[in-house]
Amino acid sequence: MKKIINDPTQVVDQMLDGLSFTHDDLVYRVEGHDIMARKAEKTGKVGLVSGGGSGHEPSHAGFVGEGMLSAAVCGAVFTSPTPDQVLEAIKQADEGAGVFLIIKNYSGDIMNFEMAQELAEMEGIEVDSVVVDDDIAVENSLYTQGRRGVAGTIFVHKILGHAARAGKSLQEIKELADQLVTNIHTVGLALSGATVPEVGKPGFVLAEDEIEFGIGIHGEPGYRKEKMQTSHELAAELVQKLLYSFDHQEQAPFALLINGMGATPLMEQYVFAKDVADLLAEKGITVAYKKLGNYMTSIDMAGLSLTLFKLADPAWLEALNSPVTTIAW
Amino acid sequence: MKKIINDPTQVVDQMLDGLSFTHDDLVYRVEGHDIMARKAEKTGKVGLVSGGGSGHEPSHAGFVGEGMLSAAVCGAVFTSPTPDQVLEAIKQADEGAGVFLIIKNYSGDIMNFEMAQELAEMEGIEVDSVVVDDDIAVENSLYTQGRRGVAGTIFVHKILGHAARAGKSLQEIKELADQLVTNIHTVGLALSGATVPEVGKPGFVLAEDEIEFGIGIHGEPGYRKEKMQTSHELAAELVQKLLYSFDHQEQAPFALLINGMGATPLMEQYVFAKDVADLLAEKGITVAYKKLGNYMTSIDMAGLSLTLFKLADPAWLEALNSPVTTIAW
Repeated sequence: MKKIINDPTQVVDQMLDGLSFTHDDLVYRVEGHDIMARKAEKTGKVGLVSGGGSGHEPSHAGFVGEGMLSAAVCGAVFTSPTPDQVLEAIKQADEGAGVFLIIKNYSGDIMNFEMAQELAEMEGIEVDSVVVDDDIAVENSLYTQGRRGVAGTIFVHKILGHAARAGKSLQEIKELADQLVTNIHTVGLALSGATVPEVGKPGFVLAEDEIEFGIGIHGEPGYRKEKMQTSHELAAELVQKLLYSFDHQEQAPFALLINGMGATPLMEQYVFAKDVADLLAEKGITVAYKKLGNYMTSIDMAGLSLTLFKLADPAWLEALNSPVTTIAW
Repeated sequence: MKKIINDPTQVVDQMLDGLSFTHDDLVYRVEGHDIMARKAEKTGKVGLVSGGGSGHEPSHAGFVGEGMLSAAVCGAVFTSPTPDQVLEAIKQADEGAGVFLIIKNYSGDIMNFEMAQELAEMEGIEVDSVVVDDDIAVENSLYTQGRRGVAGTIFVHKILGHAARAGKSLQEIKELADQLVTNIHTVGLALSGATVPEVGKPGFVLAEDEIEFGIGIHGEPGYRKEKMQTSHELAAELVQKLLYSFDHQEQAPFALLINGMGATPLMEQYVFAKDVADLLAEKGITVAYKKLGNYMTSIDMAGLSLTLFKLADPAWLEALNSPVTTIAW
């Protein structure tokens, strides 16, 4: 393992210090906690909290800020944050109108966020939550019952952030969230595995000419290994799988996210984007919003994911386009 | 080589198509050329053009937009754009007040940009230019006389973009540019080499426990190979080398850029940022502006660079902070 770190056990702590140094105009680290919170006046609106294990940077601290998350809670690498950390994030986010939790579907996250929700409610803070399970690659996985929560989560951050800023109630945000998550589907592929600093070697190894479809953001197994293919062939596989997962009865434009896994150059992401664009155009599908870059990474994994988000409500497009003040949106 | 591409000879063409698909709200690809230009009304101001070989994404197309570059000209991977391409970019950028070229110091770039300048002047467009040579690692290099132009170039884009938007004349922009480039110093390090698609293997190879200080963004040799060190030790080497390169007589705050080379996760960049912050604080140096991420990459190289920019004029900080509408700033 060759990484620019000091002590593998101190990576998250030092990363969060570096993050708060770099972006001290936008966020601050909550004293004594692995929580990044936004620097903004509290205005009595619903607070939004997300988070999970670290290693997915810029998720989720990169989406803390005006118009998006109130706070992000950062667990150890690929490890759920503890309930007391989540509780502290809820307290930081609370402005008196309740706090909404955006949880990626991992068993540890769900257990710890739900426990924190109960603790917060005992302290008189109203809390509700949604579980994002956008990864259509596989049912059940190493750390998940059902489908995993991956890159599509950032669309949930954006649209709920827009709703919270607009003064929507906790109940309205819950209803919106429940609608959103059924319309966001993602599938990814890996060219290499990620190395957790405390482990020191990649979580899995692929041959020099091999890729894996449907891999998770913690290196969970995908649905098929194959010989390396062209970008166009890879795009065709992912686009077909995604489109098949949506109900074709109902026509609507899509938002699209091409997400680099950490070590994939923009050069490759843009080549892939052209192939996705061509495939969607051939099928007569309207893409109303596009985003590309490293948003939900898996440390130093090479690979990418493709997210399609059916814009069933035209207001969602407006919400995606509204300006925010964050590190990474 | 395992890359998400189709034909290695078509990478730049397909990348630019993917880029214009993804960001069609901000930029467009000039028909029949490898040029990305901004979608903005022409207002009779000085146009700014930069560019060079591809492989440094998001540079330079990511900095095309309102308040920054008018156009970016994209050569083949690690290869200077031809004079006719640069000439076309100059024509695209021309709004009647002249065009200013921001050239990184590589012999091929200088030759081709200067030839384009002469051709444009023959067509009646006033053109001036600056050569950015911020890399203090080595004097002369594989493709360079003097010092190489690297990540600090994006600060030149930003501040000259601010000046052009404010309606400064070509001569004023030239004077500003000449002042800027003496105040921007960069030095980098590599953990691995970059693979040019048409070559198919890394430009250089480092051992599993080895790094190289002072590497260029095309894999040009640095100034020393060593065993891998901690982030704090790496930061100490780069900070010391940079501070030594500045005139200490004159006190001024600094802007700082930590730039990932393409395959380096944000996790490592933030850990490194904390170490840089601690080292500069120890020396009593004021950091008035910070930026971190992948801005001037070397395809899939692992490594990073550190840029210090002495803010000799307080107006430069204001220029750095002014909002722009680009893909990547």
